[in-house]
Amino acid sequence: MILVGERINGMFRDVGRAIASVDPHPIQEWAQRQEAAGADYLDLNCGPAAEDPIKAMRWLVDTVQAVSSLPLCLDSTNYDVIEAGLERCKRPALINSCPAERPKIERVFPMAKRFGAKVIGLTMDKKGIPKDADSRTALAMEIVAAADEFGVPLEDLWIDPLILPVNVAQDHVVEVLETIRRVKTLSSPPPKTVVGLSNVSQKTVNRSLLDRTFMVMAMAAGLDGAICNVCDEELMNSVATARILLNQDVYADSYLKVFRKRQ
Amino acid sequence: MILVGERINGMFRDVGRAIASVDPHPIQEWAQRQEAAGADYLDLNCGPAAEDPIKAMRWLVDTVQAVSSLPLCLDSTNYDVIEAGLERCKRPALINSCPAERPKIERVFPMAKRFGAKVIGLTMDKKGIPKDADSRTALAMEIVAAADEFGVPLEDLWIDPLILPVNVAQDHVVEVLETIRRVKTLSSPPPKTVVGLSNVSQKTVNRSLLDRTFMVMAMAAGLDGAICNVCDEELMNSVATARILLNQDVYADSYLKVFRKRQ
Repeated sequence: MILVGERINGMFRDVGRAIASVDPHPIQEWAQRQEAAGADYLDLNCGPAAEDPIKAMRWLVDTVQAVSSLPLCLDSTNYDVIEAGLERCKRPALINSCPAERPKIERVFPMAKRFGAKVIGLTMDKKGIPKDADSRTALAMEIVAAADEFGVPLEDLWIDPLILPVNVAQDHVVEVLETIRRVKTLSSPPPKTVVGLSNVSQKTVNRSLLDRTFMVMAMAAGLDGAICNVCDEELMNSVATARILLNQDVYADSYLKVFRKRQ
Repeated sequence: MILVGERINGMFRDVGRAIASVDPHPIQEWAQRQEAAGADYLDLNCGPAAEDPIKAMRWLVDTVQAVSSLPLCLDSTNYDVIEAGLERCKRPALINSCPAERPKIERVFPMAKRFGAKVIGLTMDKKGIPKDADSRTALAMEIVAAADEFGVPLEDLWIDPLILPVNVAQDHVVEVLETIRRVKTLSSPPPKTVVGLSNVSQKTVNRSLLDRTFMVMAMAAGLDGAICNVCDEELMNSVATARILLNQDVYADSYLKVFRKRQ
């Protein structure tokens, strides 16, 4: 599992304040905490409130790279913001994200190619997010074709089947699991699959329990990565245990400790 | 999910002692505790140490039926013991279990038919438990054919794909998950699927964590039931949460409480 730490996002009040006041300390603390907790990537999102998001993204990238050598996941719907971040990244980054919409594909994929970046492609288009696995998979196929067209290696393409809050779209969950399974059949090598995990539990009461239960299901369906709360210890224990059951790590009585140390 | 309480088994020291000393109280306490915790069935197993297992099974059935109206799951490799129990059962029972071996099939299925009992069929034969899902599914098909031959309704057939301890047979787990998926395609209506959950964590350190993580994966694969520790609250919370995510219960913020009350 490739784990992307979700916490450096302007939607969180402490991070939003740090961005507004250009205070590096809370950002760097979250970078180090998430790295210590086992993150493989760090997501960076200026949030909707940033006055000058291009400047904010540049600052976020520099601020995080000063204390962490993890690769970054640049998270914005404004591609000029992502491009500004890519120019500062020392390591190949992950672009979060691109829907199956032609003008956006034409903006994102050549940029990914130019910077050697990876791309998260979303199973949605102008009409929104379809419910069924068939339609989600069809949109994933459009993104796979785009990667091929623009010369982005399929190993660098991550498909996000877009899990929605279970209290809003309960009937989508099984469709997302089925999409994760099917995306693996779209190409050889197949694209990776990734979810924005915390989305499943938005505005619910048992967030961690819902997150880790869905995570285990998605891993059994073949999920490769998640943008998630890597500081949630019970989630990390569930990931370690799922890896053992799926025979992705060798069992030892100390497997939880081994997982934590290796991460 | 149909939950079978595993606790009235002579392998547990307190139950073994109660059987040996013909003391109904520990047995009846476990019956009531498991019923309160949400069991749909109660498994009864005299254990290997019972001196007269036929007498012990009759006593267990009577003792439990005096305090609980739950249907029973009669658990023995000695079919005379199971028959003795079936003669006492007030409600249709579950026979635990029958492998895909001809003489045993010929003993168990006519008995099931006679008593209106359900049968747990194991994906094993004289050669043992095969590793791969293909072979497990082939054995399941033999049991489906036997149910058809002896007139046991397919709704009353439960296939157990035999999960083994993860510290012994780690590569079997994904095969068991795939078998659960495939068994659903064998007939119409399909047989039910069931696992002896605690087996996956035998002699491991993190038993509850392994149990509930495997349970969630198996439920996502379509599992219908489990013989398990229904008094493990974290397991029950995982079951309730998996049901929500799989759209089997309607989401409410209070879903954990609702699940516990209904069970």
